[in-house]
Amino acid sequence: MKYLGYYNGKYGEADEMTIPMNDRVCYFGDGVYDATYSRNYKIFALDEHVDRIFNSAALLKIEIAQTKDEMKAILNEMVSKMDTGSNFVYWQVTRGTGRRNHVFPTDGSKANLWIYISPKDIVDTYKKIKLITLEDTRFLHCNIKTLNLIPSVMASQKALEAGCDETVLHRGDRVTECAHSNVHILKDGMFVTAPTDHLILPGIARAHLIKACKKLGIAVDETPFTLEEMMNADEVIVSSSGSLCLAAEEIDGKKVGGKAPELLRSIQDEVLREFNEETK
Amino acid sequence: MKYLGYYNGKYGEADEMTIPMNDRVCYFGDGVYDATYSRNYKIFALDEHVDRIFNSAALLKIEIAQTKDEMKAILNEMVSKMDTGSNFVYWQVTRGTGRRNHVFPTDGSKANLWIYISPKDIVDTYKKIKLITLEDTRFLHCNIKTLNLIPSVMASQKALEAGCDETVLHRGDRVTECAHSNVHILKDGMFVTAPTDHLILPGIARAHLIKACKKLGIAVDETPFTLEEMMNADEVIVSSSGSLCLAAEEIDGKKVGGKAPELLRSIQDEVLREFNEETK
Repeated sequence: MKYLGYYNGKYGEADEMTIPMNDRVCYFGDGVYDATYSRNYKIFALDEHVDRIFNSAALLKIEIAQTKDEMKAILNEMVSKMDTGSNFVYWQVTRGTGRRNHVFPTDGSKANLWIYISPKDIVDTYKKIKLITLEDTRFLHCNIKTLNLIPSVMASQKALEAGCDETVLHRGDRVTECAHSNVHILKDGMFVTAPTDHLILPGIARAHLIKACKKLGIAVDETPFTLEEMMNADEVIVSSSGSLCLAAEEIDGKKVGGKAPELLRSIQDEVLREFNEETK
Repeated sequence: MKYLGYYNGKYGEADEMTIPMNDRVCYFGDGVYDATYSRNYKIFALDEHVDRIFNSAALLKIEIAQTKDEMKAILNEMVSKMDTGSNFVYWQVTRGTGRRNHVFPTDGSKANLWIYISPKDIVDTYKKIKLITLEDTRFLHCNIKTLNLIPSVMASQKALEAGCDETVLHRGDRVTECAHSNVHILKDGMFVTAPTDHLILPGIARAHLIKACKKLGIAVDETPFTLEEMMNADEVIVSSSGSLCLAAEEIDGKKVGGKAPELLRSIQDEVLREFNEETK
């Protein structure tokens, strides 16, 4: 398969797949997702991602039809059908199918399982990126990885049009996260990252960064930081499942970071080593 | 047709229709909608609803493929195919089709047009309803009628489980709107309703209520009101395209309203008269 699509047991080329018009995603975006990468046909951090989608679903009372092991087996099987071993592995569950009605379906059906896999490598960890900032106007459930993503779409488009890679969101002075990544800073030898409350996604790449810091003896401070602290940080780091530890060189056209290159490099090396080790 | 589904020119029974898996609604809920009712095959307030969906789309930079007149003609044609003249007439536009990517598609394609029509009468205007209240945790773009509706789904389900009809949302003390309706109060002979800022949908039923009040010589105050003001109001009114002017008799288990029945009745009679007149 070139671009694999899967829906409730059926699969094929994603570009040609269709799904029922009455899937609740179509009217309400009523579902949750997760995504990671494979290399050599091995899916990175699959247990953590499956745990997270089950947690997202539980927070919205969506009943997943599979067990965690069944979900992992299906994902591994679908990855094995790809033409290449390095892929973006994406899946979602939506709250069943039925005629449009806000309240939950009452036919006893469980969630629909969707998978989308595309050939893709993780981003070069050592590439420098450019960011813009934008007021965070999203809902107060950003800890749940939902399909209600219009604000992230608009923020991503804004970054693209500014010739940048990502958008840093902030509520007033407080930096929350990016449109589809978490954001962290290095300051005075310390790794500072917002706590995992309802304003940010509990990023799995974020968790691996914290694990790397602990292994390297770098102190971790899970306290929110401000826009000003970010602009003056030693390094500004953006992370997601496809961007393990990217450093920013510019935010809103101003130079940032670049003041702790060796510390940054040690963290980058460690998360990349772990990724390569687990997918070798 | 019993339940009509339409997608980019194709139509059939909605339960059997399918749509491309790569429609951007599937991954991002990336679209906007509108809805109204027909009676005797005549769609109520169609111009206003078409104007509103064009406005919602423009706010998200979604390019609709039809002109307003073309959209109206398609909607009228689809309603004419229904088995009954009284219907819920729903339509949406989504930001094209393409492999999952947050940024807008670059293939030059315009929005996909969807229609869903189901046999349904408007709700009995004189029926009393029961409400619950819930903190409003939605995003700050509630003036745009988007398909990012998970918070409305959760709030609607909560009302149902409490044996109630709708959920009144509030940001702290300030009442905003309901899960899928606007909410207003009558106090000392005045109609009080929140202004149409980014916290509420500019309801078309709301606009018709204001028009009715002006015709009847009832003063209209477009100022936000508090939870306490709502609980002590003479009447609490909920409105949507299917519920023109419903009065609440209970909120969170406490009796409310019932103190201005004649004033309420005069507004209800007027909005119902207008609906019946325009769809006769």
